[in-house]
Amino acid sequence: MSIYVVGHKSPDTDSICSAIGMAYYEKAMGFDAVPARAGEINKETKYALDYFKVDVPELISDAKEVILVDHNEPAQAFDGIENAKILALIDHHRLGGLCTPDPIYINVRPVGCTATIVADMCWRHEVEIPAEIAGLLLSAILSDTVLFKSPTCTEKDKKAAETLAAIAGVELKEYGMALLKAGAGIDGMTPAQVADTDLKKFEFGSTKAIVSQISVMDPEEVLAIKADLLEAMKANAAAKEVSLALLMVTDILNESTHLLVAGEPADLVEKAFEKKVEDNCVFLPGVMSRKKQIVPQMTNAAK
Amino acid sequence: MSIYVVGHKSPDTDSICSAIGMAYYEKAMGFDAVPARAGEINKETKYALDYFKVDVPELISDAKEVILVDHNEPAQAFDGIENAKILALIDHHRLGGLCTPDPIYINVRPVGCTATIVADMCWRHEVEIPAEIAGLLLSAILSDTVLFKSPTCTEKDKKAAETLAAIAGVELKEYGMALLKAGAGIDGMTPAQVADTDLKKFEFGSTKAIVSQISVMDPEEVLAIKADLLEAMKANAAAKEVSLALLMVTDILNESTHLLVAGEPADLVEKAFEKKVEDNCVFLPGVMSRKKQIVPQMTNAAK
Repeated sequence: MSIYVVGHKSPDTDSICSAIGMAYYEKAMGFDAVPARAGEINKETKYALDYFKVDVPELISDAKEVILVDHNEPAQAFDGIENAKILALIDHHRLGGLCTPDPIYINVRPVGCTATIVADMCWRHEVEIPAEIAGLLLSAILSDTVLFKSPTCTEKDKKAAETLAAIAGVELKEYGMALLKAGAGIDGMTPAQVADTDLKKFEFGSTKAIVSQISVMDPEEVLAIKADLLEAMKANAAAKEVSLALLMVTDILNESTHLLVAGEPADLVEKAFEKKVEDNCVFLPGVMSRKKQIVPQMTNAAK
Repeated sequence: MSIYVVGHKSPDTDSICSAIGMAYYEKAMGFDAVPARAGEINKETKYALDYFKVDVPELISDAKEVILVDHNEPAQAFDGIENAKILALIDHHRLGGLCTPDPIYINVRPVGCTATIVADMCWRHEVEIPAEIAGLLLSAILSDTVLFKSPTCTEKDKKAAETLAAIAGVELKEYGMALLKAGAGIDGMTPAQVADTDLKKFEFGSTKAIVSQISVMDPEEVLAIKADLLEAMKANAAAKEVSLALLMVTDILNESTHLLVAGEPADLVEKAFEKKVEDNCVFLPGVMSRKKQIVPQMTNAAK
């Protein structure tokens, strides 16, 4: 049976493209590795896969051996992870309590995107990256760093993206804007689908929470359906057995976030950002990164 | 304030020497890093430090920023870790539930010794390793792999050790035997000191346990004071608030372990190794590695 390389549930472009890149790397190193996904792909990822003519990875089920990319918290992994042996972990998130029975290979870096680490592994081991894989890794970096504007973006991400753009044969800024535009906007999406976007589960102290994020060019379009979104967030919270649901409506042009808040304790959010939650919403100028600008603040507020 | 590089409590040669090596690396990369220790050094480590004329690292206290080497389980870290910011983690053990508020640099490899990873980092980044640091990293590898005889030993450990021996200017086998001999034997040690050797805390399912290991050339010398050791193990279990205490008396010449068992549940040990515990002892031929041949078996038995 193959080794499945898989990202987190509610996959974003990095989780899909780094899985494809990492499976390619493992194959080059002589292993029978296959990329997989832990949920439906989003519009942005579809744009990247279509552009570079790469198939959507298969939905994971019943894997015996896995390599995890772009996540390490057990709550964010595919259902069935408890029956699989984790062989390796390539990630750029905080460490979230994973236990393994044996020592495994772990490569975690505080960079803006998992794909930056995957590209670095290829270059270090002289694995040539073909144009379509380079294009996907580039897409992941442009997506995760919001065209280098996110505070999570490092010089390593920029350098890797520039090299990958040259291999892929695309003009970085032009392709990046087209990619983000394809993912932005909520055209044709139900409120439930908006509330589900890039949903991740967290524990902030004793509070169980979900935090989703949708990146848009026009936040007003999303805020116009706020009442429906709050209902969908409450339904998600109930289904995931958490008390608090947050939805980041991130404005990629103006580099800010409207944070929608459903459930309890809302005062944890107020403590974290030192701002009143008004009409279930806090406006956070400059905030684009869940990892750097939401999770640590919520974690500290829960202490 | 400096960044402290520190290994686990009840430090072994790898925890001390990898801390010294990693602090050297970080200094070469431009950071104000200082090696530290989380407990008293053992006789083997003293031999290596004396041989290569390197000072004993200072005992850690009140550190603000740390780099962890050779461990990642919170229970094995120095007291006060909860007040420190972990900047990086270099290790070769199973992942044991650590949580960090932010993403950090993590380099964990399934190799025989942390020092192998530290040496590799130096070589990758073209940091020249001076003779005395090479000698200490070599000592760590020879110690952790028991002169390459442990099942945890990989080709990478052997290759690194050979290169390091050349830099340090010592004959590998001859120095290795002298090093192990300096650490083996319980001359001048109290039963409490023997039971404390390389003590680590674990959770096997719901069972809290401590597992110590002493490597000797003549196990009979240790088994002769078994009754006193069992008393000391029970006292340790009470002090550490665990129910089970194990002591590996590892015969480095004959590659086997007498596992002493104090406390409850003893049947977890019987299930793990499919052998009866007789007179508080199980003989395990071929067993030399706690990490590969004790911890996974106990973890699985507890499932």
